[in-house]
Amino acid sequence: MDKFRVLKVKESVFANNEQRAEELRSELKNKKTYLLNVMGSPGSGKTVTLTKLINMLKADLRIGVMEADIDSDVDAHTIADQTGAKVIQLHTGGMCHLDSDMTRQGLEGLGIENLDLIFLENVGNLVCPAEFDTGAIKSLAILSVPEGDDKPLKYPLMFTVINALIINKIDVMPYFDFDQQACTERVHKLNPGIPVFPVSAKTGEGMEALANWLLGEVKAWQAE
Amino acid sequence: MDKFRVLKVKESVFANNEQRAEELRSELKNKKTYLLNVMGSPGSGKTVTLTKLINMLKADLRIGVMEADIDSDVDAHTIADQTGAKVIQLHTGGMCHLDSDMTRQGLEGLGIENLDLIFLENVGNLVCPAEFDTGAIKSLAILSVPEGDDKPLKYPLMFTVINALIINKIDVMPYFDFDQQACTERVHKLNPGIPVFPVSAKTGEGMEALANWLLGEVKAWQAE
Repeated sequence: MDKFRVLKVKESVFANNEQRAEELRSELKNKKTYLLNVMGSPGSGKTVTLTKLINMLKADLRIGVMEADIDSDVDAHTIADQTGAKVIQLHTGGMCHLDSDMTRQGLEGLGIENLDLIFLENVGNLVCPAEFDTGAIKSLAILSVPEGDDKPLKYPLMFTVINALIINKIDVMPYFDFDQQACTERVHKLNPGIPVFPVSAKTGEGMEALANWLLGEVKAWQAE
Repeated sequence: MDKFRVLKVKESVFANNEQRAEELRSELKNKKTYLLNVMGSPGSGKTVTLTKLINMLKADLRIGVMEADIDSDVDAHTIADQTGAKVIQLHTGGMCHLDSDMTRQGLEGLGIENLDLIFLENVGNLVCPAEFDTGAIKSLAILSVPEGDDKPLKYPLMFTVINALIINKIDVMPYFDFDQQACTERVHKLNPGIPVFPVSAKTGEGMEALANWLLGEVKAWQAE
């Protein structure tokens, strides 16, 4: 049997994405399934970070993953092999974002019964994914140190729509000119007070704070 | 006086982008102005690489730069300050690509008289920019070591449409799991025989080979 299913999601025919996203959030609320939309550049470390997070949280939460990509299965293989989580690969057919209807197709393909937390790994991109409400409960972005601390200046919408920021690859901080404080200030100017988690998904540094925050988020939301 | 002009380019109203791109290429040929489309992820080092290249080539070629971005001027400032080249900042108003008509608007704003080479730094993105012919003579992509050697598998269109690849940030190769040979093989499987330039725009390693190749390209094309 294959480790995961591959689903080609189709562009939505509905114009009212925001309303449909709200409907999806209500349904998720009824089922107590927390959907987290994870965005970031290609190579920012989305898959590695999710792999680590899932392995840290899987004793406490029943976790599923939707891997969205233009047309490869690389990330779904990695996640399935390294975590054992329930995984589906979504192919966007060239599109660089997911809207709420594409997300819904993915959730139906994955099956959300008996899941507490579903990660949606969005297409690697700092532009288009920020423009569409996926219907997720919350969204976060992963920015990696090698990308540079100026990214909030250049992609302001992304850093405005997120609920938390992960600064990844802090283990290579000594080799890059990355000013973590300046970066955080730029993000907070756009999006005051959001939590910022400096981590190295590779070495594990900072991952416990991130995992604890997310576990608290999901538990509090389920108990609301 | 401002160091550079900022131009908001408008989405094309024309459906026949490929034909219009061919027309733009013919006009550039008549004026002997070589337009190079430079693509890559956010943070791959497009601006730093162009800054170095311009300073290496400006004694031999008259160079202009079009910096395309969603809505910031960060890169145009950097290029103008560090090279003295003729620069224009293009704002795409949220769009993650340039088509040939937007490129034409940029060229008109910059003014191409007496320029041998114009760099178009496309929006930082591995998806959308690959889908549109800008009308450039050639296109190249910059992939940086921290992004990972699997990017050609995940963004195949980008690595198929380019005429050359720069692998940047080779100075940090020891700190990342990046297999340069595997990456090159993946690119050549999609796009046989294209030149691949491993460089560090930061330290200068490999930049001379790249600059010599580009100078040869422009001179040969102008003499055709």
